[in-house]
Amino acid sequence: MDRVPILRMGKTLLVTIQVDMQDQTALALQDDLAERIAKTGATGVMIDISALEIVDSFVGRMLASISGIARILSAHTVVVGMQPAVAITLVELGLSLDGVKTALNVERGMAVLRRAEEADLGAR
Amino acid sequence: MDRVPILRMGKTLLVTIQVDMQDQTALALQDDLAERIAKTGATGVMIDISALEIVDSFVGRMLASISGIARILSAHTVVVGMQPAVAITLVELGLSLDGVKTALNVERGMAVLRRAEEADLGAR
Repeated sequence: MDRVPILRMGKTLLVTIQVDMQDQTALALQDDLAERIAKTGATGVMIDISALEIVDSFVGRMLASISGIARILSAHTVVVGMQPAVAITLVELGLSLDGVKTALNVERGMAVLRRAEEADLGAR
Repeated sequence: MDRVPILRMGKTLLVTIQVDMQDQTALALQDDLAERIAKTGATGVMIDISALEIVDSFVGRMLASISGIARILSAHTVVVGMQPAVAITLVELGLSLDGVKTALNVERGMAVLRRAEEADLGAR
């Protein structure tokens, strides 16, 4: 069980991170996500980190990297469910999650993705 | 990280099981789900087990138990993403997941929950 499952909900792929991310798991997740975005034509990726009590620079980089990969594949990424203590720690550590969109919970995250997609369509 | 996160999507609560279920984790999940159903008035519970390569009688009982608890709280439960090998093993073991609805993936699971809810409304 070293792969994080990716659930498809319409045009959004949902990932719930529950286990400590090791190098292998993080790389596998990036690969799997890239493949699923390409295969499904998903326009949004939602990553739930509500189970994480610690987000260190490794996880921060992984989130930024996933976000970058998804962007190249024409999908937006939003990170949801961050615990308040995690946000405090991130700021204290000077990790700003550049380029990573966040939202309080899944429903607000869905709204963020919908708006981002509408903005894309408008810009075309 | 011994609690499985529960995500709310509209009137459905979504749980992705990724870790081996121990007694404590399973009990905590049942408690958390019961509380969340009562608090949010959710009408559906979706449990994704696509990451599980083995579903033994303990997990089988947990799924049946969650389904029963949800039912008493007026919510339907659907288990999605079961791997084919898991289905084969379950039948070989004589575990039939009585009273547990299943669906191939999240989208079909959503349809099952929607139909179940409509049937409830029609019956009133």
